[in-house]
Amino acid sequence: MRQTVALHHASRLVNHGPTVLVTTEHDGRRNVMAAAWSMPVEFTPPRIAVVVDKKTFTSELLQASGRFALNLPVPALADLTYRVGSESGRDLDDGTDKFARHGIATFTGPALGLPLVEGCCAWLELRRIAEPHSEQAYDTVFGEVVSAQADDRVFVQGHWSFRDDNAAWHTLHHFGGGVFGVPSRVVQGHLLAR
Amino acid sequence: MRQTVALHHASRLVNHGPTVLVTTEHDGRRNVMAAAWSMPVEFTPPRIAVVVDKKTFTSELLQASGRFALNLPVPALADLTYRVGSESGRDLDDGTDKFARHGIATFTGPALGLPLVEGCCAWLELRRIAEPHSEQAYDTVFGEVVSAQADDRVFVQGHWSFRDDNAAWHTLHHFGGGVFGVPSRVVQGHLLAR
Repeated sequence: MRQTVALHHASRLVNHGPTVLVTTEHDGRRNVMAAAWSMPVEFTPPRIAVVVDKKTFTSELLQASGRFALNLPVPALADLTYRVGSESGRDLDDGTDKFARHGIATFTGPALGLPLVEGCCAWLELRRIAEPHSEQAYDTVFGEVVSAQADDRVFVQGHWSFRDDNAAWHTLHHFGGGVFGVPSRVVQGHLLAR
Repeated sequence: MRQTVALHHASRLVNHGPTVLVTTEHDGRRNVMAAAWSMPVEFTPPRIAVVVDKKTFTSELLQASGRFALNLPVPALADLTYRVGSESGRDLDDGTDKFARHGIATFTGPALGLPLVEGCCAWLELRRIAEPHSEQAYDTVFGEVVSAQADDRVFVQGHWSFRDDNAAWHTLHHFGGGVFGVPSRVVQGHLLAR
């Protein structure tokens, strides 16, 4: 079940390097694309950097609206994730958008009203922090998280808990070519005595 | 066995969000720290962003030398990874460094001569790209990869190949608190027909 995540825990949602679906909306137009390249840059305030190619429709909507969302897909969404990372939502020949084309159900983000993808395991809404040089030179967009949610079957009391009994809600990590690793194997590091 | 990775494939080594060990050296002083927050920003030339807190000894050596390396630890190094991410190498009371303290074996990077950690599954040497604003505002350091290597048991012909028979060389992905996910479970996404 979807639960609110405290903002000071939001960076933990992407700490382990998941591939995300970036959703955007501006003036009645909306889009979704996959992005393998994102990372937190600060816990408090929660800030995240994500690489969005300037040439994409997502970049156009993000720049126009100053907001974007990150949705964390699960194994059942591997096909969809690969697909929306392989095509542009700009000027689809049937006049629709990628949500309609692929039957992607959404719900409305609580802070910014962005379209969030049903069936993911976590969702963040962000306001763009204007950093035109980083955007221009590295396609790197910085954003501040203003809402965070996660499925409480897999993110519990501020921590991911990946277990065999919730394996359907684990995250995807893109190796390339539509092949994703899923970190269902968990190891606990211990602080060694000196 | 360690093999050279073509530079245009180097970004693939960190495409899936692994935790890395950042190694640095300047004027006879060296250090190693763990970093969960890194991402590629460009395939060609291969460029990577990594978050390194300005207050760290790693940052001091990185800024002074203009170079750093990323080493990708494997499950057997989970304790060590957690440890070197939990302590500073600045002014150790025994006058040594973290390599000596923890018995970390190294070999010499082929391009920049940096200390690289034995027993990892991939290694990259980078030159810092001077971006003082990103470093100051977001602790985000950009670098260009100048050498890349990987263990050919797990990175084959430019692609990760995570299988049961090479599970000892899979990467670590930090959930927090020393708990790491290992993406040993692999799913293949397919491009759906419209």
